[in-house]
Amino acid sequence: MERIEVATKSRQGFYDITAEVRTAITRSGVQEGICFLFCPHTTAGLTFNENWDPNVRHDLGVGLDAISPQRTAYRHAEMNSPAHIKSSLMGASQFLLVEKGRPVLGSWQGVYLAEFDGPRRRTVWVKVVAG
Amino acid sequence: MERIEVATKSRQGFYDITAEVRTAITRSGVQEGICFLFCPHTTAGLTFNENWDPNVRHDLGVGLDAISPQRTAYRHAEMNSPAHIKSSLMGASQFLLVEKGRPVLGSWQGVYLAEFDGPRRRTVWVKVVAG
Amino acid sequence: MERIEVATKSRQGFYDITAEVRTAITRSGVQEGICFLFCPHTTAGLTFNENWDPNVRHDLGVGLDAISPQRTAYRHAEMNSPAHIKSSLMGASQFLLVEKGRPVLGSWQGVYLAEFDGPRRRTVWVKVVAG
Repeated sequence: MERIEVATKSRQGFYDITAEVRTAITRSGVQEGICFLFCPHTTAGLTFNENWDPNVRHDLGVGLDAISPQRTAYRHAEMNSPAHIKSSLMGASQFLLVEKGRPVLGSWQGVYLAEFDGPRRRTVWVKVVAG
Repeated sequence: MERIEVATKSRQGFYDITAEVRTAITRSGVQEGICFLFCPHTTAGLTFNENWDPNVRHDLGVGLDAISPQRTAYRHAEMNSPAHIKSSLMGASQFLLVEKGRPVLGSWQGVYLAEFDGPRRRTVWVKVVAG
Repeated sequence: MERIEVATKSRQGFYDITAEVRTAITRSGVQEGICFLFCPHTTAGLTFNENWDPNVRHDLGVGLDAISPQRTAYRHAEMNSPAHIKSSLMGASQFLLVEKGRPVLGSWQGVYLAEFDGPRRRTVWVKVVAG
């Protein structure tokens, strides 16, 4: 298992970890298989989305804030329930396929750590399995 | 493949199955690998979230009810379309990494069966693969 | 890796690819293992949901439109940010378990390509691994 470390810079943001995932796959020596990614945090998540226009990440943040705002019925004293919900909406366990030692992604696709309660130090666990 | 059975107690709730997942991994004898979890229901799902403050699960329920309420344009006669949508939002297929015969999770992370149309008897399928 | 091709017919819709997944598993010759599905698009996704009453897919579309509408604060010039968000909400990486050479799904469960910015030609990548 490898670790990708991300120092997030603000409350919410999407951090492209595609290059780090690529490096982890290379280091594993696996040519054909699956690269498993796991986010061990409950106010962050993992998602695939567009890697070209940064406005897409901006809009993803605006959209998720509108979908999961602060609500008066929430009880959690840390006041970060909107972030916990976004974390479950994005997901903690994601994988990608590996061919010829490289991740296979769509042309416009990147892998993102989604921060919802930053800034913090975050970790993504990576395990590459041949198959 | 193993099965984890959960008897849910109300319309909506989050049931911690982390201990059952741990037991399934131990029983598999796998030391290093992946534990695959699959929810075969379309009005329930699987998610990872905080295992400490139960208010987080309360707020997750309140938040999902607000995100996916009953809507007048829905046609499904069973009236449980909000639950079908929540099921797709949480996800049916989730995995976790296994090291030294144990699941590796974040400090505050538990594995939850999310019930959205209970009470019912629910099953989670578990398959542990070495790798 | 196999490819499932789907020609979507309208802006939004859910396309049942369960039969194609079944065929890919048969062709792989794998009897026990995991079938990994990956959607290489950032305005489409993969989800499991009810395969019986088509009204459930209708309602899933209505619900996701309400959850992720167009918003004035969006900046992405292609005007399809609602679709990008739905893509992340559904997910790009999903798997299902394989037993006796067949996918194991719940009685009412199908595998769907979720189109959010069609009509287009879409592809789903499939990899079946024994384990």
